[in-house]
Amino acid sequence: MNNNDMVVIDALQYVNWTRALFEKLNCSGMNAVHVTVAYWENTQETLEKIGLWQQRFRDNADLIMPVRVATDIEVAKKQGKVGIILGFQNCSPIEDDVKKIQTLHELGIRIMQLSYNNQSLLSTGCYEEKDSGITRFGREAIKEMNRVGMVIDMSHSAEQSTLEAIELSQRPIAITHANPAFFHKALRNKSNTVLKALAQSGGVLGCSLYPFHLKNGSDCTLNDFCIMMARTVDLMGIDHVGIGSDLCVNWDYSTLSWMRSGRWTSGVDYGEGSASNADWPDQPSWFSEAGDIMNIAAGLEQVGFRQTDVTKIMGGNWLRFFDNAFTAA
Amino acid sequence: MNNNDMVVIDALQYVNWTRALFEKLNCSGMNAVHVTVAYWENTQETLEKIGLWQQRFRDNADLIMPVRVATDIEVAKKQGKVGIILGFQNCSPIEDDVKKIQTLHELGIRIMQLSYNNQSLLSTGCYEEKDSGITRFGREAIKEMNRVGMVIDMSHSAEQSTLEAIELSQRPIAITHANPAFFHKALRNKSNTVLKALAQSGGVLGCSLYPFHLKNGSDCTLNDFCIMMARTVDLMGIDHVGIGSDLCVNWDYSTLSWMRSGRWTSGVDYGEGSASNADWPDQPSWFSEAGDIMNIAAGLEQVGFRQTDVTKIMGGNWLRFFDNAFTAA
Repeated sequence: MNNNDMVVIDALQYVNWTRALFEKLNCSGMNAVHVTVAYWENTQETLEKIGLWQQRFRDNADLIMPVRVATDIEVAKKQGKVGIILGFQNCSPIEDDVKKIQTLHELGIRIMQLSYNNQSLLSTGCYEEKDSGITRFGREAIKEMNRVGMVIDMSHSAEQSTLEAIELSQRPIAITHANPAFFHKALRNKSNTVLKALAQSGGVLGCSLYPFHLKNGSDCTLNDFCIMMARTVDLMGIDHVGIGSDLCVNWDYSTLSWMRSGRWTSGVDYGEGSASNADWPDQPSWFSEAGDIMNIAAGLEQVGFRQTDVTKIMGGNWLRFFDNAFTAA
Repeated sequence: MNNNDMVVIDALQYVNWTRALFEKLNCSGMNAVHVTVAYWENTQETLEKIGLWQQRFRDNADLIMPVRVATDIEVAKKQGKVGIILGFQNCSPIEDDVKKIQTLHELGIRIMQLSYNNQSLLSTGCYEEKDSGITRFGREAIKEMNRVGMVIDMSHSAEQSTLEAIELSQRPIAITHANPAFFHKALRNKSNTVLKALAQSGGVLGCSLYPFHLKNGSDCTLNDFCIMMARTVDLMGIDHVGIGSDLCVNWDYSTLSWMRSGRWTSGVDYGEGSASNADWPDQPSWFSEAGDIMNIAAGLEQVGFRQTDVTKIMGGNWLRFFDNAFTAA
């Protein structure tokens, strides 16, 4: 398949960016990437991270550009750049202030998870024992995200919270990076109930390449991954499945520890890992860097997807979704 | 009864303090008051409020003094001053950082509610539809509050969260200001189940004089209030009941609106009030200011309490509780 035929979008990467990594990304075949600006950072800390991205956009203007509306992705492709979509994996950046949703949208943030793994002020995370759904503040935040055009992302949220977010949101929501639980049982992967509700409301799932979300972990085969995608399409429909690789690059253990433990425990939380398997997992051999993305397109063809469907999965679905999502209601 | 016989403690007041109000407090017969430093304030905003209290302690050193250990209350009484116990009605001041519990304890904070009316990062508030109990971060916070000697206060928290806090805490907890639901059904008042569990674990309830917590609201009679206290003592035992008046003085509507709506909604939340009854409620005639506190002591005797028991309710129970609560485990 000719890469020119399709727009390729990765709905989640978490990378310790350098110019060299932007150069690799620019040659990867990807046209847009949703990047993580914050996990546990408060407003002040988030503004510093946004400032860092503004600097990166200036310093690497030949390689990347910010995505504020979905058509920026097509502009990026045309100009041989990669569009960068800024997002949060938690709602810490808005603190307790619903008004900060518009402020951060104006600064370029287009996607926000209502929670990371723990209970947030808006919803329950998938690592909590009990899930009380969307909170009072959460209902207000959903209304405001709908209004300004910020995508509600429930990748790390718990089941009931996710179902309620789908129900409460007037616009389709996203699960940018997770897999179906039928493929690999994990707190982070999603039930058929959630996936069906997501699809029925017009949402999109980004299938994840993070080893803890994969059958057989780092040893997961490309074929198994693509068969999972086929089964997911059977469940959700061809318009509701995409890629959200959750590719993590160039970080040491301290960053993983920050993601897992933040500041909320003085102990150690191993997240999806364990005491004996605490570090970053190895990526599958066929997806160790952004440049491997076309392996997936090839794998999808091999398990029987038609070219038009591969195009949808590789980025067409996200492009359509973002086109309806990033502007004011 | 001679006021010298007992230590009088009010376990919650929220007052827009002036020197004139400290003067009135100093003549009220109260020996110590737990005051509210923060509701929705983040760490930075809370540090400013603590700074304001440091200034108040300097400017009014003839009238008030900070309580860091319970014996400071007896010192205050001896010196003719009122001891001030600093506390939070929400966990916003610690943001997402368990370490800030020690930091704020070192700055004099001795009591913190795990939530106000909404879901917090630690527990569920009584105004939420569903109550998921103590969160992962909440368990860490309880351990840390136990360690440093900061009282866990569940006055505004939901039922299951409160029961779990009682269970998880290694030290007795408090409900500084609420009434039994048997007296007046309100989201803020507490079930017999909660009150019994609180008493069994060594905790104390501060009975509230806030009209929305009272039978017949502002028209509640002193006799009805004191009969309620007698029934509460029947339920909890004489060692587990005190006063937490929730007296709010010298605020205009904007402060009530801040308490209720914070920054979490762009709409209006009426809290315990309603659109047609939005403003501060009138206090009962027999408790309109701190100086009326001795009316309650008299009322308790009138409904049959012995003097030694009145002494416990008016402050003895809080003094004993605080004596075990304010220092490191």
